[in-house]
Amino acid sequence: MKKIKGTITSPLGFMAAGLAAGIKRSGKPDMALIVSAVPAVCAGVFTTNQYLAAPIIVSKQNIKSGLCQAIISNAGNANCGTGKRGMADAKRMVDAAAKALKIDPKHVLVTSTGSIGKAMPMDKVISAIPKIADKVSKKGGHDAVLAILTTDTRAKEIVVKVGGYTIAGIAKGSGMIHPFMATMHAFITTDAKIDRKTLQALLSKAVDNSFNMMTVDQCMSTNDCVFALANGLSGSRVKGQAAIKKFYQALEGVCVYLAEEIARDGEGATQLIRIKVIGARNEKDAKTAARAIAGSDLLKCAVYGKDYNPGRIYAAVGATSAKIDPNKIKCDMKFGGKETIVTCDLGVGRSSANAWGCDLTEEYVKINAHYHT
Amino acid sequence: MKKIKGTITSPLGFMAAGLAAGIKRSGKPDMALIVSAVPAVCAGVFTTNQYLAAPIIVSKQNIKSGLCQAIISNAGNANCGTGKRGMADAKRMVDAAAKALKIDPKHVLVTSTGSIGKAMPMDKVISAIPKIADKVSKKGGHDAVLAILTTDTRAKEIVVKVGGYTIAGIAKGSGMIHPFMATMHAFITTDAKIDRKTLQALLSKAVDNSFNMMTVDQCMSTNDCVFALANGLSGSRVKGQAAIKKFYQALEGVCVYLAEEIARDGEGATQLIRIKVIGARNEKDAKTAARAIAGSDLLKCAVYGKDYNPGRIYAAVGATSAKIDPNKIKCDMKFGGKETIVTCDLGVGRSSANAWGCDLTEEYVKINAHYHT
Repeated sequence: MKKIKGTITSPLGFMAAGLAAGIKRSGKPDMALIVSAVPAVCAGVFTTNQYLAAPIIVSKQNIKSGLCQAIISNAGNANCGTGKRGMADAKRMVDAAAKALKIDPKHVLVTSTGSIGKAMPMDKVISAIPKIADKVSKKGGHDAVLAILTTDTRAKEIVVKVGGYTIAGIAKGSGMIHPFMATMHAFITTDAKIDRKTLQALLSKAVDNSFNMMTVDQCMSTNDCVFALANGLSGSRVKGQAAIKKFYQALEGVCVYLAEEIARDGEGATQLIRIKVIGARNEKDAKTAARAIAGSDLLKCAVYGKDYNPGRIYAAVGATSAKIDPNKIKCDMKFGGKETIVTCDLGVGRSSANAWGCDLTEEYVKINAHYHT
Repeated sequence: MKKIKGTITSPLGFMAAGLAAGIKRSGKPDMALIVSAVPAVCAGVFTTNQYLAAPIIVSKQNIKSGLCQAIISNAGNANCGTGKRGMADAKRMVDAAAKALKIDPKHVLVTSTGSIGKAMPMDKVISAIPKIADKVSKKGGHDAVLAILTTDTRAKEIVVKVGGYTIAGIAKGSGMIHPFMATMHAFITTDAKIDRKTLQALLSKAVDNSFNMMTVDQCMSTNDCVFALANGLSGSRVKGQAAIKKFYQALEGVCVYLAEEIARDGEGATQLIRIKVIGARNEKDAKTAARAIAGSDLLKCAVYGKDYNPGRIYAAVGATSAKIDPNKIKCDMKFGGKETIVTCDLGVGRSSANAWGCDLTEEYVKINAHYHT
């Protein structure tokens, strides 16, 4: 796996665009469209929040077709808690994109992110869709990632080259970020040729080891999803154990990179926190302990203040169901310039896990105390 | 149940004292002693954190004797993560108090609160114990509550009169406060005559409905405990269903009052948040939803900024295992001067629960970013 310059449109046959439809009051770009030249095999992981946003319900339905040719996504309004009208609006977005692109509506996925509980400004959305469909191009990848951001301070994108094919990923997410679900938005494209079942299995596993091990504020969103589209245009087949392993490593690498980028760009964050748990009884325990450390507000404040306080790591881990040996457990923290390394050896076994988090700052409070004002 | 003026020494036969032993660098009071004239029936609830502090291990052992005559408690050092030396230190505190008071060491409970991972300054502690034992009096109750505080900004105490007996409670706690364990320190005295098994059952239930439904920062402490001492000196017997119900209501009232006081005095808090969940399938679901709302950093920030944002309530509840009807769920928030009321009707049943929390402010971050510095 080799990291190369590029964006979501780097794999063969993918195009994209971003524009300002007027959904965000700031006038910043707020609509993205990603299109594959041919229907792509596709996999998805969705938030486990029970209070699902309308676009998530629609995309969960459409992804069952097994193929996807376009993702239409907006920022500034989550289309969540919007009842029947919200469902109709999400479907209208799908239909409008399908019509403009002359493709099957079942092959269109839709996502939204932003404020919960407000009706979508559908006049603006519907008039923008044909415009963005006209605009899609090989060059539009970076515009697309800019248009899905909310409180993010920068775009998150990565492209890796693996043998005969390319994998690219973009993501948004800065607040309301917590493991145990699909988390934020991440879109992954590849021109590898891979069957749907394998793609779904590999994506689910990669999400478990990346986005699901990353937290900003322990708040689970209603709109989260990760999509992977494989259009096969490179002609490079992912078949057989060795090829699948290679593809998986690259896919996980892409997901981990984007997860780290989200944690690093957490609302108000000044530090990325890398958590490494070792000596666990099993992988489940290792992950439980790592997630608990990443989620401790007290530890996050200590990291912000560069206040050496391993006691907070012990307290966070001890509060979980992960088995520890109170006499052997050993936790530590090391401050770097922009990264803090937190380690914890539970002292009972040989399993390990990584997690990612960020510090808690006055700025996080400010951002979220005045979200609407 | 009638609330009256007074403190932890208001029930018959209880005395107390507080003093500055020099454990806190600030020179503020940091050692408390509560004594009953006769051995009292006693009940306790302890933190469920696996990484237990030494005094908690010692008190868990001593409470098995079924009787308690004194509680020796210090602030400024948690005596946690201190290994064998910590265990020996906690036992020395018990022995020194027993010797000074001329009582059975098995009837002494010990608690500590403060920094984790530092050895207790035992010279100071041991020379202070005979002094504080000399100082205990009927008038020393308020001094005792002042001496158990850490980042608290004020004392938390309550006294209620119920028929022929009195129940009093004091508590400390401001950070590292989270439900699902015994939480902080709370000491309850009563001169009612009650058997141990009943007292333990009623205390556990009252804690479940009060301290365990209250959170400041979702961080579970290693030193938490709630003790109830009933010395029977009023001669008023708590026996039979009606008397037990009456006692329970008063005990729960004391616990709820102290839990609210802790949330109100949460580190950096400007608002108490009262959460009321109704329409749940069962009590477990109602409590799960209420706790999740109380724990949402995003909601806490919105309350701080008085930013009307019920979407964050829906997101917090939807993320739990509590059953909701997405079409019937109805959440709302109402800002008051110093209290915010958050309500949520899950729309599926008739069970309800209350929880208490506080807002998240820049001040919380400041307090915890520079705890040691």
